[in-house]
Amino acid sequence: MKILKDIETIVGSKGLILGEDVFNRKAGIWIDDGIRADAIVRPKDTQELSEVLELCNAFKQPVVPHGGLTGLAEGAISKKGQIAISSERLVEIEEIDTVGRTMTLQAGVPLERAQQEAEKHDLMLAVDLGARGSCTIGGNIATNAGGNMVVKYGMTRESVLGLEAVLADGRVVSSMNRMLKNNSGYDLKQLFIGTEGTLGFVTKAVLRLREKPKSTNTALLAMNTFEQVTKFLKHVDRGLGGNMSAFEVMWEDFYSQVTSPPAVNSPPLKQGFPYYVLVESSGSNQDKDSEHFENLLEQALNKELIEDAVVSKSDSERGTLWAIRDDVEQHYQDGPVKMFDVSMPILCMENYIEEMNNKFREHWNDYKCVVFGHLADGNLHVVAGVGSEDKESIKKMESCIYEPLKPIKGAISAEHGIGLEKKDYLSISRSEIEINIMKSLKETLDPNGILNPGKVFD
Amino acid sequence: MKILKDIETIVGSKGLILGEDVFNRKAGIWIDDGIRADAIVRPKDTQELSEVLELCNAFKQPVVPHGGLTGLAEGAISKKGQIAISSERLVEIEEIDTVGRTMTLQAGVPLERAQQEAEKHDLMLAVDLGARGSCTIGGNIATNAGGNMVVKYGMTRESVLGLEAVLADGRVVSSMNRMLKNNSGYDLKQLFIGTEGTLGFVTKAVLRLREKPKSTNTALLAMNTFEQVTKFLKHVDRGLGGNMSAFEVMWEDFYSQVTSPPAVNSPPLKQGFPYYVLVESSGSNQDKDSEHFENLLEQALNKELIEDAVVSKSDSERGTLWAIRDDVEQHYQDGPVKMFDVSMPILCMENYIEEMNNKFREHWNDYKCVVFGHLADGNLHVVAGVGSEDKESIKKMESCIYEPLKPIKGAISAEHGIGLEKKDYLSISRSEIEINIMKSLKETLDPNGILNPGKVFD
Repeated sequence: MKILKDIETIVGSKGLILGEDVFNRKAGIWIDDGIRADAIVRPKDTQELSEVLELCNAFKQPVVPHGGLTGLAEGAISKKGQIAISSERLVEIEEIDTVGRTMTLQAGVPLERAQQEAEKHDLMLAVDLGARGSCTIGGNIATNAGGNMVVKYGMTRESVLGLEAVLADGRVVSSMNRMLKNNSGYDLKQLFIGTEGTLGFVTKAVLRLREKPKSTNTALLAMNTFEQVTKFLKHVDRGLGGNMSAFEVMWEDFYSQVTSPPAVNSPPLKQGFPYYVLVESSGSNQDKDSEHFENLLEQALNKELIEDAVVSKSDSERGTLWAIRDDVEQHYQDGPVKMFDVSMPILCMENYIEEMNNKFREHWNDYKCVVFGHLADGNLHVVAGVGSEDKESIKKMESCIYEPLKPIKGAISAEHGIGLEKKDYLSISRSEIEINIMKSLKETLDPNGILNPGKVFD
Repeated sequence: MKILKDIETIVGSKGLILGEDVFNRKAGIWIDDGIRADAIVRPKDTQELSEVLELCNAFKQPVVPHGGLTGLAEGAISKKGQIAISSERLVEIEEIDTVGRTMTLQAGVPLERAQQEAEKHDLMLAVDLGARGSCTIGGNIATNAGGNMVVKYGMTRESVLGLEAVLADGRVVSSMNRMLKNNSGYDLKQLFIGTEGTLGFVTKAVLRLREKPKSTNTALLAMNTFEQVTKFLKHVDRGLGGNMSAFEVMWEDFYSQVTSPPAVNSPPLKQGFPYYVLVESSGSNQDKDSEHFENLLEQALNKELIEDAVVSKSDSERGTLWAIRDDVEQHYQDGPVKMFDVSMPILCMENYIEEMNNKFREHWNDYKCVVFGHLADGNLHVVAGVGSEDKESIKKMESCIYEPLKPIKGAISAEHGIGLEKKDYLSISRSEIEINIMKSLKETLDPNGILNPGKVFD
């Protein structure tokens, strides 16, 4: 490719990976295949990236932005004829303002490094997810990452005060706002949050930090009915006065498998209840907060909102409870499965799961379909498998999970994004007019369609 | 105007106000002038509005969206040749989901009515501002209203889960998402939040509600140095573990005037300190939270972060402390003044205020310039007056307040918006590229420029 010579002039040989060195890199943390793009460009700063994109735009050269490659929706998959552009050399943490509680950093900084840097100053970055060690801040922003802290602190969007992005034509949009409030014209950063690199390449950000909470309380509870789950949610959320920091639910079959051999954890509460809830609060005073937390659970027992409860008494007990919730791997051992990420109003969940199972039963006598998730956010994960991985089976499985979302206006992606993987189903969650507006925005900001083409929509 | 006949065919005579009935309505709650538009159209539903806009678009007829007309940046001012479109008949609260904690309602519902409706269900809408009785949800969304709860719950943007808007060409965009999480493609609602009716007319919304906190603690504190203020902010925010719900600061001259006759309030803390802080927490248990709150203040006294403190012991005492903070009217009695609404990193505030005063002194020996605001949000309000209201004086005053924001990347509008009033200064807070992108978005969604033309930018 002739353009690669010109790109090398901009980024130097250190900034360009070619040939089999490209394919030798995995296309994603959880993908065995190699990267298919013709080259990986690694600009050392915004200026280089700007020049590279200006050039690519002039030659209508498609590019695929790369962060930590931990995405779950094929948002960073590339193919022959495309060029990957990686943020891996944009790894500087530029400033921490401990009074304004902000961190200014480049997009390639891994989430965990940003978290640790905040902690050094006794502050907290309120974004956390399993891939923290590998995923990057730029990727978190481009996908509006969710994760473990959404119910208290919101999605990544809510932690982004400002950002810098490079447009397809190389123009650098600097919207590095550092304030919680800025109504000076349109809030342009929203264009680059959750748009999966299709409207611009995020190069820098100003993140909001929080004072670190000083207490944590965690419990695992068992319920017999979904009504108990929703009533308990209201009870504990109201009782904690804004301090509820997690409300995770595991359905029975999820819980049984992660607390039975070969899983390493044994069940802290006996198996067989239809629902298990992991609830956590964060606050300001460990002793007082623990007392209050346990009072709330006692009230819930008395009101018959819960059947049984175990409260963690140490960090290691807390770790065990979370390890159970996080041991999703167990569900990958009985043949091929696929993980789904849907959301819906909480009141619709029971019917939705029933209808989804009905649809599965129409096609298969034997199938796997376990449910767990961030219930308070409306977000359920479904691990589903039907014994085979051929295209037709997967398509049927997808329709069992996505179609019942349509009448209840649920989302085919709560937190993972659309990428390549879900774009065929976008019209389940979005109207034709909405998709047309998305396309108009794309056309306006990237008229040659060079930025992550084919992702989100065609 | 011929078009009015056609509009009447759509909305009926009840949907159209003409002639002197238009001018007899005030152009704004705080404006003595009448509405200058040729007509006020009052569609009874989205369908009617859609038809009206389609028609206006075909004839390139400019329209000005009207909510409660409480805006502070001339965002709803109209002139001859324009047609105002009011949401005053879109006043239905359609649904409250007490489990999902959402409210679905039409845009013309006044904020206070929505708040009260939430309270009936023991829930809370986390948006509040002085104009609550008159301002509408649609206006709150169009201006991304700030107010009294931002430090804990964010701007209006963070309480909007979904919305419906009508585009300039009459297309209805329904993005009535009800979940906390939905990453299914671009988050289009952001286009209509804080864009002051220039990209679409918001007709409906799904708002996030919260469980209502059960405790409130309020105190007024005095400090000698700005360093004490910022150190105390960190101390109390960390100590409250996420429960700080207000942190308002009054500079000395603000406080003296609102606690001296003819103001009705007397000073709860003696006058003469350079800074006064009103801090509030909301939580889950009044007794425990009060004890904890007072402990934090005692620690702050011991650490010499505060000089003096008064803690409210009743709702009425709390009311008095807030009445002092809210008695901005007092500053309007010594001749003409103008209120400004800027934001900047907290660390820049001291220098900013000094520089602003230096600039005032360059032009005037005698001037008024009192400062107060939502300090934790980075948001300061400045009430300034120089004895005269002629255009040149106001322009000079504006430059004294806005110019020093440029080097520190502050915002000329933290929460009030740009409207007509501040558009000449937009380039202080936004780069040329940013403003160009705003214009591209406008061009894409409203190619004929009929929606609130001339607002935000030309």
